[in-house]
Amino acid sequence: MAIERPLDALSEARNKTVMVELKNGKTIRGTLLAFDIHLNLVMDNAEELEGGELSRKLGKILIRGDTVLMIAPSE
Amino acid sequence: MAIERPLDALSEARNKTVMVELKNGKTIRGTLLAFDIHLNLVMDNAEELEGGELSRKLGKILIRGDTVLMIAPSE
Amino acid sequence: MAIERPLDALSEARNKTVMVELKNGKTIRGTLLAFDIHLNLVMDNAEELEGGELSRKLGKILIRGDTVLMIAPSE
Amino acid sequence: MAIERPLDALSEARNKTVMVELKNGKTIRGTLLAFDIHLNLVMDNAEELEGGELSRKLGKILIRGDTVLMIAPSE
Amino acid sequence: MAIERPLDALSEARNKTVMVELKNGKTIRGTLLAFDIHLNLVMDNAEELEGGELSRKLGKILIRGDTVLMIAPSE
Amino acid sequence: MAIERPLDALSEARNKTVMVELKNGKTIRGTLLAFDIHLNLVMDNAEELEGGELSRKLGKILIRGDTVLMIAPSE
Amino acid sequence: MAIERPLDALSEARNKTVMVELKNGKTIRGTLLAFDIHLNLVMDNAEELEGGELSRKLGKILIRGDTVLMIAPSE
Repeated sequence: MAIERPLDALSEARNKTVMVELKNGKTIRGTLLAFDIHLNLVMDNAEELEGGELSRKLGKILIRGDTVLMIAPSE
Repeated sequence: MAIERPLDALSEARNKTVMVELKNGKTIRGTLLAFDIHLNLVMDNAEELEGGELSRKLGKILIRGDTVLMIAPSE
Repeated sequence: MAIERPLDALSEARNKTVMVELKNGKTIRGTLLAFDIHLNLVMDNAEELEGGELSRKLGKILIRGDTVLMIAPSE
Repeated sequence: MAIERPLDALSEARNKTVMVELKNGKTIRGTLLAFDIHLNLVMDNAEELEGGELSRKLGKILIRGDTVLMIAPSE
Repeated sequence: MAIERPLDALSEARNKTVMVELKNGKTIRGTLLAFDIHLNLVMDNAEELEGGELSRKLGKILIRGDTVLMIAPSE
Repeated sequence: MAIERPLDALSEARNKTVMVELKNGKTIRGTLLAFDIHLNLVMDNAEELEGGELSRKLGKILIRGDTVLMIAPSE
Repeated sequence: MAIERPLDALSEARNKTVMVELKNGKTIRGTLLAFDIHLNLVMDNAEELEGGELSRKLGKILIRGDTVLMIAPSE
């Protein structure tokens, strides 16, 4: 399916694992449950990573959209 | 219940204990009383944590939404 | 009275003493006279605190809302 | 007269001397001629202060509102 | 074709390789799949470059528009 | 003429020499040709000043409003 | 022709060489192809300058408007 608008890419990623890079340099990995046009995100089983390794379990979280740098499906 | 929009996750957390990470690196723990679309939050029995330990009792507070990094249910 | 929206908490605090933490790390204590949805605040008998001690008397002031980190009733 | 909204406090201060603290740490003292909802300010006979002492005469100036931290009547 | 509006330049770049410079100094190269008026971008086969060399494979990503400094077709 | 709104002060300064202080600490002096509500400015014969001395001739420039700290008529 | 609004100055500069100073201190020189009210710019034959000397060829680029400090016709 062609992606017409950027948020279509998030619709495809729903209920899948994504990596979220924040503007403060941290990376969060978890299951994308919900998002909105501000890129506010709800993730489940979220974990903070450092150097690709788990550094902290966060569980279910809401991330404020204006702290997001990029979002990618997890490898 | 499926979460359709990010703020639904906050509705579920109402009157429960949440952890709020601020952009300045501080963590606030308390009972979520109210919120709005800007993520302005009112919390009761709020406490500031450092290294997971209580560093300051804040009582009832209003947090300005644009200072919020993420919100999580407390473990 | 239940607080439905964050600004309801400010309505309750009107004409009472509040502590305002600013994003620049300063704390202002004073009587909350008025506020708006941007969290612009007017305070009377305002004082700047350092380490919990009075460092400067400010009198009646208007604080621009986007400089506010959190607002709490004074202990 | 009770102040219902924050900008009412500025209406009262019109044509009077005010102190304006900017986010960059500077303080400007002068006569408040005009303001708007963004807190853009026009001041006359404006002076920049350092440590409470006059450091620079600015004359009539327009200050962009988003640089303002707080506004207080001069003592 | 004359470019009347800046986003026309992005329409021309669709499905082609672009270089995106971010405000944090990083450069991302990849195929532009989608964009919107906020400059939110979806890129495929995205790679992070350092000194013009590949430093990290990112795959398919969504970049938040307010982190973008400039966008250029790849040479 | 009384100034009712801050931008009235800019209307009075049109086609006259003004000093513009930018948030990055630089000062620009030139003739104010045009402005808008964002404080975007067009100046002619603009010069950058350092320590009150001419450091760079800029000619005709458009300054983005959100970089402006204050605007003053030149002495 | 008198310039009534700041963006009129950009209309005059269309298809001509302009210098763009960015908030991060970099200078871009190139032909202005398109712009919008956010000051998003499309430039052709763009070059990055350091100390007035060419440091990097960029080709055709889109610059996000909120990174712009000022725009001037090239000398």
